Amino acid sequence: MATRGYTLTKDQHLARLRRIEGQVRGLQSMIEDDKYCIDVLTQIASVTKALQGVGLGLLDEHLRHCVMAAAAEGPDEGDAKLDEAMQAIERMLRT
Amino acid sequence: MATRGYTLTKDQHLARLRRIEGQVRGLQSMIEDDKYCIDVLTQIASVTKALQGVGLGLLDEHLRHCVMAAAAEGPDEGDAKLDEAMQAIERMLRT
Amino acid sequence: MATRGYTLTKDQHLARLRRIEGQVRGLQSMIEDDKYCIDVLTQIASVTKALQGVGLGLLDEHLRHCVMAAAAEGPDEGDAKLDEAMQAIERMLRT
Amino acid sequence: MATRGYTLTKDQHLARLRRIEGQVRGLQSMIEDDKYCIDVLTQIASVTKALQGVGLGLLDEHLRHCVMAAAAEGPDEGDAKLDEAMQAIERMLRT
Repeated sequence: MATRGYTLTKDQHLARLRRIEGQVRGLQSMIEDDKYCIDVLTQIASVTKALQGVGLGLLDEHLRHCVMAAAAEGPDEGDAKLDEAMQAIERMLRT
Repeated sequence: MATRGYTLTKDQHLARLRRIEGQVRGLQSMIEDDKYCIDVLTQIASVTKALQGVGLGLLDEHLRHCVMAAAAEGPDEGDAKLDEAMQAIERMLRT
Repeated sequence: MATRGYTLTKDQHLARLRRIEGQVRGLQSMIEDDKYCIDVLTQIASVTKALQGVGLGLLDEHLRHCVMAAAAEGPDEGDAKLDEAMQAIERMLRT
Repeated sequence: MATRGYTLTKDQHLARLRRIEGQVRGLQSMIEDDKYCIDVLTQIASVTKALQGVGLGLLDEHLRHCVMAAAAEGPDEGDAKLDEAMQAIERMLRT
């Protein structure tokens, strides 16, 4: 029962995404109330970081389960899954 | 009446944030339906990019209006607003 | 003589870039000596951060001097310089 | 003999890093010659992207070789290597 930084259950991912949804609604209220731009930007950075956290959690599980299972089937299966995962990592990095 | 990449009205910011809220709910459905991890990651990258777009839009307006107005008041006022804006840019860059 | 986070003299930019050049040579030695991948990645993250620091420094000066000078000439000149600066900020964000 | 996006030989990594070293020297010349800030920023974005490309290449090999070899030894060994790799990915993402 190792403690892992990223691996979360489905419920934990959903809880995080519901919190992010609430934060996005909070951003709408900030805009409606004409809050100071810089404060809105600070909050946007926080929501972005939370979204990336969900992404890192999903990637962690994907590498740990799907990619490892594919690699156990054979080297070509493992390589194909890793190609796909690397493309996802690059997309995360480029946004 | 130049077309600008970022400067948007309050309504446009709100419309973008409502769309992002919908996308975050879409992410919840993807997790609930056990969609393939890589597809969820692709969608997360898209939502992140949309959020950054709102951030860039707000920053654009902030520089164009608040910072310029402060600079018109005096060099110290302008410098203080630019210090603050640079910190916001760094926060955007580091997430 | 306010202390600013980013505004640096030409010599300071050059000193930073020479240090970055040394770090890139250090990365070459790490690869040649077959250093552990994760350690090379940590060092790459550090060089990337240093490069972004130079970028933020140049952007700060650009906003503070070129953009402000253009805005003092007239609103169209200021707007044109801000359009260009926003595009540079977006490029920094997207890498 | 699949063509992979990232996996490169040691020589290819070194060739890329030597090109990046040249680009960093090019940045120094741009500063010395007082080139326009925005052009220097464009070039910094390009060097940053090149550095990240080297990082992605090393990460790809690391996942494909070190992590897979550890996973073949046992689940704990694989998990430990994946924890470490995830931390490296997070560091790449946060810079």
